[in-house]
Amino acid sequence: MKDWFLMRKLKCTISYDGTNYSGFQIQPHKNTIQAEIENALMKIHKGEFVRIYCSGRTDAGVHAKGQVFHFTTSLDIPLINWKKALNTLLPEAIYVKQVEHVSPDFHAQYDAVEKEYRYFVLNSSEPDVFQRNYMYYNDREFNIEKMQKACKLFMGTHDFTSFCSMRSTIKGDKIRTIYELNCKRKGDIIEFKIRGNGFLHHMVRIIVGMILDVGCGKIGMEVIEEAMKRKDRTAAGVTIPPEGLYLWNVTYEKEC
Amino acid sequence: MKDWFLMRKLKCTISYDGTNYSGFQIQPHKNTIQAEIENALMKIHKGEFVRIYCSGRTDAGVHAKGQVFHFTTSLDIPLINWKKALNTLLPEAIYVKQVEHVSPDFHAQYDAVEKEYRYFVLNSSEPDVFQRNYMYYNDREFNIEKMQKACKLFMGTHDFTSFCSMRSTIKGDKIRTIYELNCKRKGDIIEFKIRGNGFLHHMVRIIVGMILDVGCGKIGMEVIEEAMKRKDRTAAGVTIPPEGLYLWNVTYEKEC
Repeated sequence: MKDWFLMRKLKCTISYDGTNYSGFQIQPHKNTIQAEIENALMKIHKGEFVRIYCSGRTDAGVHAKGQVFHFTTSLDIPLINWKKALNTLLPEAIYVKQVEHVSPDFHAQYDAVEKEYRYFVLNSSEPDVFQRNYMYYNDREFNIEKMQKACKLFMGTHDFTSFCSMRSTIKGDKIRTIYELNCKRKGDIIEFKIRGNGFLHHMVRIIVGMILDVGCGKIGMEVIEEAMKRKDRTAAGVTIPPEGLYLWNVTYEKEC
Repeated sequence: MKDWFLMRKLKCTISYDGTNYSGFQIQPHKNTIQAEIENALMKIHKGEFVRIYCSGRTDAGVHAKGQVFHFTTSLDIPLINWKKALNTLLPEAIYVKQVEHVSPDFHAQYDAVEKEYRYFVLNSSEPDVFQRNYMYYNDREFNIEKMQKACKLFMGTHDFTSFCSMRSTIKGDKIRTIYELNCKRKGDIIEFKIRGNGFLHHMVRIIVGMILDVGCGKIGMEVIEEAMKRKDRTAAGVTIPPEGLYLWNVTYEKEC
């Protein structure tokens, strides 16, 4: 009798439509992305529970084009079959784009060196029923040049305490580095792109909300500068809706 | 005391995301577009029931960019306020684009002289979670030139019995005239446009399905010609899914 067995660690890259989910992280009696994936993995493992670990949870209604999670398994299945099996068992709102073997010490959260988010605003005179879950609708007039200037205020390394949900339970500091933040208009759509080494709870939605406030003349640039200095959530603006937000990509240093 | 009151007939143009609805037409214990609108109108009329009449029902999962309905009311409300009141009361999946006064003899169904539908196919190697309810996903290889030729077979006046659901309950003949039917590729998307004087139940979905069958080499052109002659539903192909279909526009001769 063998008294040992081989385990493998797998990294999965997925996209999901967050509309009908209470976010990524598993919660009792709630429909979550994690629960769907763990249920699918349990079926593949014939009833055995398998825990997954993601790069970082997303909130209810937030979408992903490139979320990453890992798990370990004793099953010896070719990668292409892993992808097929998962996509067959998962609901259509979740799609596994890629499955890779990674080294035993890989961790989807702790090894992420960069994350990219996008935020989409539908800025037209009338709303679009087909975009209501996929973009934040706002019909105000926005000055894109002003907004591009406001973007620059956030770039670099800062203490983002003012731009973090008060419900956040993170330990450690709230200093993060933003490598890139820009916005552009394509027809009726305003698209924000933000890359950084890490993001606090609600950080993207609070930052983009303040840039939009600058763009429509509700506040001046100095309000952002002041909020950054104050290190106090009440100094920043509101958290804008989740439907415009997409976890776009997660980068790992060593693609093991 | 006044023993009479004035009534007005209103024509509304709406768009809706049909994903979460059991179609347009009201049905007991089902979520329908008509029920949502009649509920909203009942609130505006302080509890009084108001029946609406549409240009033609759409099936479960089918969308609309330009559905039209009419109703009569004794309320004297400016048009702009009608639009606001309805959009405030309706769920976000339904949007009233326009409200107009029409003559007392206007009928959204019987006065329609032309309807336009569009059908969208996502033809990529991988599905897109964000398009799963808005396009029909198919990863086969399609020959667009062949499909454009197949489109021509349907144009003009024909008996479309073979291309009508067997569950259809219409009285009268199944002769209809198609003014335009074409398809084009834009990147990963194949878009069909079809205009005609009227459409039978499932007609667009059966026709587009057969054109796709020609495009991927599953059938030859002669199968379409044969189906047209046979006047028998079993001679045509399957009804392809509803999520790709949009009632795009309804035209009335006299915009009263």
